Amino acid sequence: MDRLWYGGDYNPEQWPSEVGEEDVHLMQRAGVTVATVGVFSWAKLEPADGRFEFGWLDDVLDRLHAGGIRVDLATATASPPPWLVLAHPDVLPVTEDGVRLSVGSRQHYSPSSATYRRYAGRLVRAIADRYGSHPAVEAWHVNNELGCHVHRDYSDESAAAFRRWLEARYGSVDALNEAWGTAFWAQAYGSFEEVMPPRTAPTFRNPTQLLDFDRFSSDAWLEVYRAEARILREVTPGVPITTNFMGFFKPIDYWSHAAEVDFVSDDHYVDPADPAAPVFAAMTRDLMRSLGGGRPWILMEQSTSAVNWRRRNAAKPPGMHRALSLQAVARGADGVMQFQWRQSAAGAEKFHSAMLPHVGEDSRVFRETVALGEELASLADLVGTRLSARVAILFDWDSWWALEQPATPAELSYVAIVLRWYTELWRRHLLVDFAKPDADLSAYAVVVAPATQVLSTAAQENLAGFVAGGGRLVAGYQTGVLDDRLHVLLGGYLGALRETFGIRIEEFAPPAEPSLSGGPVPALAIHGLGGGTAREWGEIVRIDDAEVLATFAGGMLDGLPAITRRRSGGGSAWYVATAPDDLASVVDAVLDGAEVEPALPHPVDGVEAVRRGNRLFLLNHTDQEIQAAGHRLPSRGAVVSPGD
Amino acid sequence: MDRLWYGGDYNPEQWPSEVGEEDVHLMQRAGVTVATVGVFSWAKLEPADGRFEFGWLDDVLDRLHAGGIRVDLATATASPPPWLVLAHPDVLPVTEDGVRLSVGSRQHYSPSSATYRRYAGRLVRAIADRYGSHPAVEAWHVNNELGCHVHRDYSDESAAAFRRWLEARYGSVDALNEAWGTAFWAQAYGSFEEVMPPRTAPTFRNPTQLLDFDRFSSDAWLEVYRAEARILREVTPGVPITTNFMGFFKPIDYWSHAAEVDFVSDDHYVDPADPAAPVFAAMTRDLMRSLGGGRPWILMEQSTSAVNWRRRNAAKPPGMHRALSLQAVARGADGVMQFQWRQSAAGAEKFHSAMLPHVGEDSRVFRETVALGEELASLADLVGTRLSARVAILFDWDSWWALEQPATPAELSYVAIVLRWYTELWRRHLLVDFAKPDADLSAYAVVVAPATQVLSTAAQENLAGFVAGGGRLVAGYQTGVLDDRLHVLLGGYLGALRETFGIRIEEFAPPAEPSLSGGPVPALAIHGLGGGTAREWGEIVRIDDAEVLATFAGGMLDGLPAITRRRSGGGSAWYVATAPDDLASVVDAVLDGAEVEPALPHPVDGVEAVRRGNRLFLLNHTDQEIQAAGHRLPSRGAVVSPGD
Amino acid sequence: MDRLWYGGDYNPEQWPSEVGEEDVHLMQRAGVTVATVGVFSWAKLEPADGRFEFGWLDDVLDRLHAGGIRVDLATATASPPPWLVLAHPDVLPVTEDGVRLSVGSRQHYSPSSATYRRYAGRLVRAIADRYGSHPAVEAWHVNNELGCHVHRDYSDESAAAFRRWLEARYGSVDALNEAWGTAFWAQAYGSFEEVMPPRTAPTFRNPTQLLDFDRFSSDAWLEVYRAEARILREVTPGVPITTNFMGFFKPIDYWSHAAEVDFVSDDHYVDPADPAAPVFAAMTRDLMRSLGGGRPWILMEQSTSAVNWRRRNAAKPPGMHRALSLQAVARGADGVMQFQWRQSAAGAEKFHSAMLPHVGEDSRVFRETVALGEELASLADLVGTRLSARVAILFDWDSWWALEQPATPAELSYVAIVLRWYTELWRRHLLVDFAKPDADLSAYAVVVAPATQVLSTAAQENLAGFVAGGGRLVAGYQTGVLDDRLHVLLGGYLGALRETFGIRIEEFAPPAEPSLSGGPVPALAIHGLGGGTAREWGEIVRIDDAEVLATFAGGMLDGLPAITRRRSGGGSAWYVATAPDDLASVVDAVLDGAEVEPALPHPVDGVEAVRRGNRLFLLNHTDQEIQAAGHRLPSRGAVVSPGD
Repeated sequence: MDRLWYGGDYNPEQWPSEVGEEDVHLMQRAGVTVATVGVFSWAKLEPADGRFEFGWLDDVLDRLHAGGIRVDLATATASPPPWLVLAHPDVLPVTEDGVRLSVGSRQHYSPSSATYRRYAGRLVRAIADRYGSHPAVEAWHVNNELGCHVHRDYSDESAAAFRRWLEARYGSVDALNEAWGTAFWAQAYGSFEEVMPPRTAPTFRNPTQLLDFDRFSSDAWLEVYRAEARILREVTPGVPITTNFMGFFKPIDYWSHAAEVDFVSDDHYVDPADPAAPVFAAMTRDLMRSLGGGRPWILMEQSTSAVNWRRRNAAKPPGMHRALSLQAVARGADGVMQFQWRQSAAGAEKFHSAMLPHVGEDSRVFRETVALGEELASLADLVGTRLSARVAILFDWDSWWALEQPATPAELSYVAIVLRWYTELWRRHLLVDFAKPDADLSAYAVVVAPATQVLSTAAQENLAGFVAGGGRLVAGYQTGVLDDRLHVLLGGYLGALRETFGIRIEEFAPPAEPSLSGGPVPALAIHGLGGGTAREWGEIVRIDDAEVLATFAGGMLDGLPAITRRRSGGGSAWYVATAPDDLASVVDAVLDGAEVEPALPHPVDGVEAVRRGNRLFLLNHTDQEIQAAGHRLPSRGAVVSPGD
Repeated sequence: MDRLWYGGDYNPEQWPSEVGEEDVHLMQRAGVTVATVGVFSWAKLEPADGRFEFGWLDDVLDRLHAGGIRVDLATATASPPPWLVLAHPDVLPVTEDGVRLSVGSRQHYSPSSATYRRYAGRLVRAIADRYGSHPAVEAWHVNNELGCHVHRDYSDESAAAFRRWLEARYGSVDALNEAWGTAFWAQAYGSFEEVMPPRTAPTFRNPTQLLDFDRFSSDAWLEVYRAEARILREVTPGVPITTNFMGFFKPIDYWSHAAEVDFVSDDHYVDPADPAAPVFAAMTRDLMRSLGGGRPWILMEQSTSAVNWRRRNAAKPPGMHRALSLQAVARGADGVMQFQWRQSAAGAEKFHSAMLPHVGEDSRVFRETVALGEELASLADLVGTRLSARVAILFDWDSWWALEQPATPAELSYVAIVLRWYTELWRRHLLVDFAKPDADLSAYAVVVAPATQVLSTAAQENLAGFVAGGGRLVAGYQTGVLDDRLHVLLGGYLGALRETFGIRIEEFAPPAEPSLSGGPVPALAIHGLGGGTAREWGEIVRIDDAEVLATFAGGMLDGLPAITRRRSGGGSAWYVATAPDDLASVVDAVLDGAEVEPALPHPVDGVEAVRRGNRLFLLNHTDQEIQAAGHRLPSRGAVVSPGD
Repeated sequence: MDRLWYGGDYNPEQWPSEVGEEDVHLMQRAGVTVATVGVFSWAKLEPADGRFEFGWLDDVLDRLHAGGIRVDLATATASPPPWLVLAHPDVLPVTEDGVRLSVGSRQHYSPSSATYRRYAGRLVRAIADRYGSHPAVEAWHVNNELGCHVHRDYSDESAAAFRRWLEARYGSVDALNEAWGTAFWAQAYGSFEEVMPPRTAPTFRNPTQLLDFDRFSSDAWLEVYRAEARILREVTPGVPITTNFMGFFKPIDYWSHAAEVDFVSDDHYVDPADPAAPVFAAMTRDLMRSLGGGRPWILMEQSTSAVNWRRRNAAKPPGMHRALSLQAVARGADGVMQFQWRQSAAGAEKFHSAMLPHVGEDSRVFRETVALGEELASLADLVGTRLSARVAILFDWDSWWALEQPATPAELSYVAIVLRWYTELWRRHLLVDFAKPDADLSAYAVVVAPATQVLSTAAQENLAGFVAGGGRLVAGYQTGVLDDRLHVLLGGYLGALRETFGIRIEEFAPPAEPSLSGGPVPALAIHGLGGGTAREWGEIVRIDDAEVLATFAGGMLDGLPAITRRRSGGGSAWYVATAPDDLASVVDAVLDGAEVEPALPHPVDGVEAVRRGNRLFLLNHTDQEIQAAGHRLPSRGAVVSPGD
């Protein structure tokens, strides 16, 4: 398409038919180019087993087409109708406690359910047959937010699928026993039939069982996607396919899902009351671009103002929605879509804002909707342009799953740790790619590995090679502790990277939890680079062949290394054994002399700068007017100018 | 009866028979006039299926009668005996997770259980037959605290009853689909058989399904009452019937229950450590009087000192029990009863205080018991007198259920919001009635509608008519957002009242939650009436035809209306779009010139004044001596004087 | 054995066989004398139903024996293998909500399972037959941490066992009804068949049902022990038997379990970040010595540094592990063992520290392991020596279970209350025994009864006799409230002790919870002994014949007694009705003139002194150097010197 996508989820089935005509006129006024149709239409399209009713949808597509609005057409499989569940309760997912979930909300099906797959497949084929060549159809929208509510299913049917998955992975039960370390706690299995999903048990479940169930579950959701995509590719080979992701969503390894979509799309809902929202949004945009290998992606859902599922749902202040929409385009999106076009009058999402609010056209929100449509139309020349980054952060679902398991050195938040590093790079106007630990890193000058707890042998060698090739590698604590079976890298952790960093980790020594001290959060003292205080982490580092850039002071870590560096050739390997409050100085030191090109030379508080194509995007996320790069940026304002 | 009720639950079956004689003598010493008997006696009255043993109860009633003590006789159905449950496990209630609750506590039955109803009915008939004409019997006490622990039952039997209830309400499944908005999330039902109670589901359940299940469940408990009352009215048409309510109890819509009892009775347990306890108690007394349409009611249960179910159970300081008992009488009660007469030596309530404590007669508590009995005897001339109020607060269970659903603009507490308004009126010694939104309001000068989120068309018209007729209507935020199917009142909320208030609500904009700010609770600033700070709420109000009495200052609401008023004829409609800390000034403005008559002209901190009949009740709820209205009020003391 | 036990859990089955040789050499270097073998080896010893494979274990024992290391041989029954569970799911335990727990962690069996007992018994017999006369075997280690994760099982099989247990206890259902007070809430049972375990119910379950289920469950775990011990005693009558306890572990009444082991052993894991850890450890050591009737015991498990199951797992600072190990020896342990010898590379406990850490021999932890081995070797002459105390604290599982039930006067922590008294005695270097309320107390000068809520008639008489015989008895609040059926001791609580103390308790009056006040924790004021402030408790005490040593000031307790004493003969009975912040003064007064002998004459902050045999142990638990008793104690250091 030669325009940016702009529009939203469109659910005309919730409204009287006369509203449909008005919708198209208002969409045209708002500059809408694409509408997502049919996401939750299964019950209307197939009101009884095998009885399909497409007439109403024919009308919707014809009307949109006549109005010049293209359609992102959903496969309508996101929520099975009540009749299906009543006839086939085996479709329903089961919790780890054995509770079979009920109909009445949405996504009430197990990804492993053969019955679900059979019914969904029949529906997808019927839709593809009927609409595959409809002139309005721009893309297929498979299902919706796969796994959003049903992260994992513990039913007997999933248990059987898990066993097949394990058999395919390990070949023999002996190999599984070795990988899972079942010699511990007498867990050795005599056959795959004995293996269970990690249902509620008396105490900590086997860590590798948990990890494999995470991997299996992510794959099970991928199978739901594949089963639909297979039909669509067969019937309409020319229509591109996506399914909407949910940003940093723990249950699903999007590296594997992204490999199978024609373009990445993402749903992202900021909390307007959260001061960190713009940075976290930027980080998510960079992840989406990276998942697609640098190709443009679509911001498939966002809200124009408040959502409806937080404890208190703040409205977006004027300008915020525009700034965050432009941010997405700046960071590689070829369109921004909203949930949803017209705010619902009933149902569980009626209090979720929309492009056209309850109050109607005469409203702040609709005026902003129209203005954004105009602005996006003026950026159509950016469609298809790509960005390139010189800095990468490793991001790895195995590490996420492992780090946040129970029975680990501490309860840590993987994404919070990644965000701290990202924030420092964002402040410096540096574009960041995310990469898998075993990805080709040759395009990057600097790679950061925050709490990348799991490193396969291949990943260890990949990172060692990156340094050997002249790269700068920065590892944060809890990196390289385990291999991809969650077995400890014995002898000082880090595996093959022990030589690269020139250190061994002897012991972890986090400071006490805040709750125990009764007072302020206990802090470690740091001397040297990043000096001052540090929180959350400390460890005993032994130097084999590295410089010590900072040391701990006081307590049992007194005088021991806190930050180390080993140079070799043009490359260097930095190890940061703590969480210094002054991470900025550490990042300055890492970047010093590196071949990276920020979009602006200096940080300006609250201002984000990104270059895409021939444009410089300057975004002011504060509620104060700011001067930056020769532009006056109004509060929550943005300037898009030709880049210099 | 020509005396006030005074006494308590009496459970002689827990004690050796010789204690029974002593009980009557001590009751006489304490001025006891009524004892509630048999609440938990099913297992003793029917120790095996169909074998009734009434001898012991004959003795109890005869002995009380001989002692001049009247009997509030329970139907004994509150807790089915173990033998019944073992033979009929279908009686047991089921949680939303599918857990079938066990015997071993109390109230372990589903209100929809046909088996329970059959057994309970047989027992009630047997009791009515035997005791209906016993001279001691003053009233029937149906069951006990209906729904107290089993708020909702999700069993298959309840599911079937829910479907019948829905069929009666909607007639057709199409009407249900329309009301529930099932076009959203593909929830359309093909038949009533597909509908389920809102059991645990992957995410938010349908809001109208939730509301209807709340309504159904309240009705299911009403059916339990009705089934017993039907038998009692048939056998003993002359004996009045009650069942004890539990104040502001969310699971049951007491407007519907109150319509079917001969007199309202209530159980109320203050937390002596809670400084707001006296105001909340007063508010509850006013609700009870209002539920009964102004008729006298009975305070059926309270504790003389500590209860046993809080984390820490504070004792009532000397005087508190007297003051709160007199408060009930002042606010329309024709009696105050206690749980219980003699403190249990065993069982789950042994640590709950009683009129006669563990330590015996020589105790502070028993001395206060005796003194209160004497004082109540001196107030016997108040029996039957009624009070009238000129101010009403709307109270509506639909709004309560809707406002506190998930997936709403914010987590709000309906009763906390009501209490803020009530407190201001209480401080001014104004008697308050509670009223349903569609009730006849012609008796009132002022009506307050705090967070009355649900307004049917009839209710909207009723309130518009109240203003048109010269009344003052004050609406707080989140009033009139939804109709009684929980469909949004589109076009600016408020429905037919949009004209009455002369405003539209464009968007909700609550301030951030405290937790996000990390510091003190974020506050909005207000200029004008009620100026200062405000918490919890803000919204974008658009003026069509109204005065602006206060505006927001700062942030995205800067300069927008916070409080508005529209006058028409003699009436006025006030809208308060926030929760000002200085609500007092707002209430002063509302009352200014209104035809209301406080019991005392000026607020006195901690002092409550109420007039009933020819008495002025002055209650000092503080631990300091206070002079008020020419009386010296000792700490936690009360003076009941002839009114002037 | 003529050496102290020193070593740890040894799980060679988790490692390649070549590691085994290295293990023995390193153990010898570390001074290891005993290894615990086979705790979780069931799946390896019996990989399929009835197929036993002992060869690998033969090798392990032979190799250890050749290395001079003795073996604490486990019965390997702690975790049933997956094949057993798949074939017999009835083995799995069930929660109070009816969830059947799954395989995949450990201890997934019901203690009442006949199937489990049959399989476990066959395994134990096979192990006893094969290794009973192996020269390496020092002791039998039955099962492991009985009840650690499965505190109670609510399955139908446990329900049946509970009924048999009740029948044995009560004889008739009438007696059960009387004991449980089932006249309350219509709970009377017609037969034992109607009785259920306390599964999830609508509200508070019967207190005596709860208590009896606690007693039954503790006994059920004892039956698991007995079933194994019976076989071991039959096959190997000469080998001593233990099972490892878990300190102050609420689910199991260790008085009953300790009576059946040949020596007590205990697992104790301090939180290095908790400042109270050393005192709590000392208290636990004293409990273990007391459980064994003063006989030496074994510290069977501790960690050398961090554990893996807290939210943040702090490392032990240098010296701490040594100090706490010596503390155990000082307080009667004949050995200190660790979990585990070699830190696991996989499984749920891989992040739990060990004697030989992941990093290997060249580490702080292994160097401390070696040094501790040397020091313990020098203390071998202490083996078998016993200690004697002159002060006892009552400790009673019935009181623990009762005090922490729901529906009590307040949520209190039994162990926290005990710890407050213990801390005062520990500071004064006084050795403390723990004793059951009905134990022979004649050896003691002073006995403290903190919150001993449950006192049988025998216990009441025992304590009265202790005072009559010249002892000093100090009772804290909530002592003697209930008899052993949880029936209230009517007439002022305390039962037969009312005369001993010369008081009655009229009412409990705890101050408000902190949460209600919104500000600092509310405090009571005390005048007299222990004057100042007090928290958590207050009550109305009436004097019959006692001195008042302190009174409450302010509030409803103003002027009432807070601490009383009644002297009779040489004895005295003190009652402390509150929790004074200055408990120290109270304890000073109690001890004044008592015949007790502290190990050092004066408290020194953070220093613990204990005498055992001819040694004085001086332990500095602070991170500062301290001079005490003529010794320089380095930070976290210890001196063991010949006693004077």
